[in-house]
Amino acid sequence: MPVSISQFQDLIRRTFGAKDSRRGIDGTFLWFVEEVGELAAALRAGSAAARIEEFADVLAWLATLANSAGIDLEAAVQGKYADGCPTCHQIPCRCDPRVKP
Amino acid sequence: MPVSISQFQDLIRRTFGAKDSRRGIDGTFLWFVEEVGELAAALRAGSAAARIEEFADVLAWLATLANSAGIDLEAAVQGKYADGCPTCHQIPCRCDPRVKP
Repeated sequence: MPVSISQFQDLIRRTFGAKDSRRGIDGTFLWFVEEVGELAAALRAGSAAARIEEFADVLAWLATLANSAGIDLEAAVQGKYADGCPTCHQIPCRCDPRVKP
Repeated sequence: MPVSISQFQDLIRRTFGAKDSRRGIDGTFLWFVEEVGELAAALRAGSAAARIEEFADVLAWLATLANSAGIDLEAAVQGKYADGCPTCHQIPCRCDPRVKP
C-alpha cells in the first residue's frame, strides 16, 4: 500500500509524539544528526540491509523533527518541488551544471 | 492531492536523476549535509517560511541520496516503522524513557 508523506509523518507523531514534545527541537536535532552519521557509515561500509535501515531512520527522525517544529513535510515539498527544479521549473532540471552540478 | 513517499522519490529522480548519477554518492552526501546545516540555522533563527523551505530541501536531498544508493525510501520506512516503534512495536512507543528518551 502506498504511504503518503503526511501519513508517515502522522504515524511517527502517533508513535513518538509524546516523547518528542518532552525532548524538544534541540534534543531531537541531536538524535537526527546522529542518524545522519550512521547513514554516512552505512553508505561508506555498510551492508545493503544496513543502508535501508539507516535511510528509514533518517526519514523517521526528519519527520519527528518536523513534528516538533510544527512543519507539514508533504506541504513543504509540494510547495517547493511540485513543478520539478525550484530554480528552472523544469523536469528534468536544465540549470547550468556549472551553477547547479 | 496526497503524495506518496515513492511518488516524491520518483519526482526527484525524474528532475535530478541525470545530475545525481554524475555527482555520485559522496558528492551528493556533501550537498545533503549542507542542507542539514541550513535546516539547523533555520530552526535556530529562521522565519517560518525559511523552516518550511529547509525541511523541503533536506527531504529532497535525502530522496536524491536514496536514488543514488538504489534505496526505495517508502519500502525502507514501511519495513521498519509500519508497526510503530521498531523496538517495542507499540503505537505509542512504550520503551523505557531512560533507554529511549
